[in-house]
Amino acid sequence: MKTIEDFTQPYGLVDKIDAFGYLEYLRNNPDAPRKAGKVVLVTADTPLKASRGEGKTTTTIALIDALRARGIDAAAVLRQPSMGITAAGSKGGASGGGKASLTHPELVDWGLCGEMSAIEAAQNLLVSFAEKAIDEGKLDDVLVPRVSEVPSRSLRKTIVDAGKNNVAERVVLTPTCELMQIVVLSRSMDELAERVGNMTAGTKDGRGVKFNEFVELWRITNILTDAVKPAKTQTKAGSPVYVHGGPFANVSLGIPTLVSVEMATALHDVVVVEAGYGADAGAQKWLDIACREFGAQWPSAAVVVTRATTWRDDPTLQWRYPFHVNRLESMNIPTFPLINLWEGEDDLVDSLKSTAASLGFREPVLGNLFRDGGDALVSQLDAFVDTVQAADIPAAPESHRGMALRDNIEWVSKHAYGVPSERVIDRDGFEDSLNNARELCATVDVNLDDLALVAVKSPATMTDNDSLPEDQRSVTLKKVEPHTGAGVVQVNLTTSLTTPMPKIV
Amino acid sequence: MKTIEDFTQPYGLVDKIDAFGYLEYLRNNPDAPRKAGKVVLVTADTPLKASRGEGKTTTTIALIDALRARGIDAAAVLRQPSMGITAAGSKGGASGGGKASLTHPELVDWGLCGEMSAIEAAQNLLVSFAEKAIDEGKLDDVLVPRVSEVPSRSLRKTIVDAGKNNVAERVVLTPTCELMQIVVLSRSMDELAERVGNMTAGTKDGRGVKFNEFVELWRITNILTDAVKPAKTQTKAGSPVYVHGGPFANVSLGIPTLVSVEMATALHDVVVVEAGYGADAGAQKWLDIACREFGAQWPSAAVVVTRATTWRDDPTLQWRYPFHVNRLESMNIPTFPLINLWEGEDDLVDSLKSTAASLGFREPVLGNLFRDGGDALVSQLDAFVDTVQAADIPAAPESHRGMALRDNIEWVSKHAYGVPSERVIDRDGFEDSLNNARELCATVDVNLDDLALVAVKSPATMTDNDSLPEDQRSVTLKKVEPHTGAGVVQVNLTTSLTTPMPKIV
Repeated sequence: MKTIEDFTQPYGLVDKIDAFGYLEYLRNNPDAPRKAGKVVLVTADTPLKASRGEGKTTTTIALIDALRARGIDAAAVLRQPSMGITAAGSKGGASGGGKASLTHPELVDWGLCGEMSAIEAAQNLLVSFAEKAIDEGKLDDVLVPRVSEVPSRSLRKTIVDAGKNNVAERVVLTPTCELMQIVVLSRSMDELAERVGNMTAGTKDGRGVKFNEFVELWRITNILTDAVKPAKTQTKAGSPVYVHGGPFANVSLGIPTLVSVEMATALHDVVVVEAGYGADAGAQKWLDIACREFGAQWPSAAVVVTRATTWRDDPTLQWRYPFHVNRLESMNIPTFPLINLWEGEDDLVDSLKSTAASLGFREPVLGNLFRDGGDALVSQLDAFVDTVQAADIPAAPESHRGMALRDNIEWVSKHAYGVPSERVIDRDGFEDSLNNARELCATVDVNLDDLALVAVKSPATMTDNDSLPEDQRSVTLKKVEPHTGAGVVQVNLTTSLTTPMPKIV
Repeated sequence: MKTIEDFTQPYGLVDKIDAFGYLEYLRNNPDAPRKAGKVVLVTADTPLKASRGEGKTTTTIALIDALRARGIDAAAVLRQPSMGITAAGSKGGASGGGKASLTHPELVDWGLCGEMSAIEAAQNLLVSFAEKAIDEGKLDDVLVPRVSEVPSRSLRKTIVDAGKNNVAERVVLTPTCELMQIVVLSRSMDELAERVGNMTAGTKDGRGVKFNEFVELWRITNILTDAVKPAKTQTKAGSPVYVHGGPFANVSLGIPTLVSVEMATALHDVVVVEAGYGADAGAQKWLDIACREFGAQWPSAAVVVTRATTWRDDPTLQWRYPFHVNRLESMNIPTFPLINLWEGEDDLVDSLKSTAASLGFREPVLGNLFRDGGDALVSQLDAFVDTVQAADIPAAPESHRGMALRDNIEWVSKHAYGVPSERVIDRDGFEDSLNNARELCATVDVNLDDLALVAVKSPATMTDNDSLPEDQRSVTLKKVEPHTGAGVVQVNLTTSLTTPMPKIV
């Protein structure tokens, strides 16, 4: 009989776990011991700015520390943030803060778990193979972008082969690329290779050409040998934390890898999955993509984090927090408001509680988690723990596979952003982009409507203008980009950037 | 009392060693036990093509296996090859072959030791910081190139910020960049940070601006936390092998890190350092840069590898192999010819020996190292072992620091390529490039003549045309590029590419 230790190797200060191997072992050995852990989603209010989080990671860490202090075997699953942005100082890390921190935040914040760089190399190598295919007459153009983990404003639009063929390109952030999506969604190296092979490299005579038509896929999967292994680290209080997958649920999946969560639920009773930016990005992606389309486990509860100032200070945006809480409750997910207090805000507790009550929320959880960590939460979790422990593991709702993409977009706009179909507006060129995507997919035997919808938008807005009154909010559709390998179709909405490549600030 | 184990951590299938910490411990504890190992250089004939090696790594592995079979504590130090080129299939790996292989060649060949990607991210982040400095009016232009570990022909010339400022750029292979040179040459994190700070980021009003004027250096060194640690792996026969530093002695340093070799000589009696491509690239760099200018240990012996076909088949290039052997002997390095036989070449042994004798070589070592590994060598190493064990550790020759760069180039051309000063020719623009480099250095208080000369050339030639008769061979000087952080000045010679960025083939 094997244990998780047989699938674990130290990599410096973290362990890496062969999750593919462990989960295969469990599948092949039905009698091998395992847990049937519950998933809890920690998500947040829509942030006021992308660079200013509400404290989701801090909350996630404090929550598992508090649960373990109550004797419950809890663990967390985090994504690896984008190293470049953290290293440049444009954004805080994603490793919690203060008392609710990881033992080695630098490993997570600075990319030292290593998977991002391997994915970057592998995706860029695919582009080089596509260039070679052009030289050999197998391709006319390249549809997959190069990637960089380091942000740089000047890479949004580039020209390569300058002075000769002058090919216009764009460089996107590594965590947003199709190969990262494939790593997030794949449950075995064979599946991963198949998905890479099904990526549309480019076109030849107007028809899509897949990488499996000209690339030896082992050259790509070999680079990803270690990248597919979740890292294991811990909180300062000693709670287990798994880190795997990339950020940016605004422009890509931005969720932890499916195998990291599946492995964690086999090992622990409660698995807290962080899903950000806000609920409209991270939770929407976890629920509507991971669970609905790719078999991930539906959450037994959700915690929606906000800061007192986010909820309070802009009256035109105050609608968003209750919207998120109510939406999750409407999907039968018991949803607990959590207000992460900052220094000097302790005296707001009573007024925040009464506001929450007036909105019909469950009893909110409040605390200064930076200062007090899990200690702030231990005594407030009775209802939460009862709820999580009482329920059976819920089934995910039915797939949208086969739903016309346009209907799918309108469904998301209505359910996740509160905008009805009559105010879902096409920008000039959207219809062409949609039709082109549909035709391109058809040439590689893919039905566009079978792909899972990934909404691409700003992290700080759900609609074209969240500050307008409800009946004036709209969602503008801009562009369609299918990823036939990952099995998703990206649709750019509202104020999305077409190239997610920030400058450092 | 600490041992090397206290500085060693497992990283998956390899160990990584805090060489900075171990060497500092030895400096601070003069009584701590250590060895005073001898350095042996394994280098080669100039290859006929860059992609076709003579078998240096195979020889290095067979040699340490054979030495250990004779009871000698031998180890090897290798560089990490460029993952992109290996992964793409453009070049074999650099992990030996056949019986003379590493236990896990994929770790070395596929970049899984990890330092290359960290160096790539850090160098690209420096470029992004420089862009930010332009936005803030601190810089007019950027002099450091972006890097990619993945080769791509179309990145030789690029335009970034396309449609706005249209900035012309070039992307160079990661292992050739100044930051890799700094990792190779630095003996502590403080020295590394100081060197990064002294890199010339760009210019403002015609004067050089260094990174320490606007970048918090810990942001760069943090990324390099693991990258500065040599990896330890082993041969199939169990001999220890350290891997650290990048390739391409034709266009950059291309030598292992200084600390990896220093650490190895403290731990083993004989340390075999691989220095390629040919002796004119790898050995020249180790001797004239690492030893002469940066305090590395002078070799107690050298092995110059060739293949029977390289030495034999092109009469116009046959001069090169004896030239290399004789040059090393002339520097008082006992030099052993080694002919790496391929399948079907066993019957060449007698004729190769007689040719070697007629050239006045030491008794050559011959064997099919792919097929037989160290077994092919064990009985042939008496003279080699006696030589290495008998000698004291030699002193390195005097530094060229302060020698006029032009004189230094002529010195290298004469000694390493056999071309006298009257046939060292300036291409149009060289003088301007030299003067510009001198003036730029002066603005950051660096004397160009104090920098160590790095000859940048094709791996397959030493002169403008190696096939011409000796009295017609020339060296054309093309371009000067100072690296004020690494403390080197690169001079492009002969048939060098100005941008080392191959396409994949």
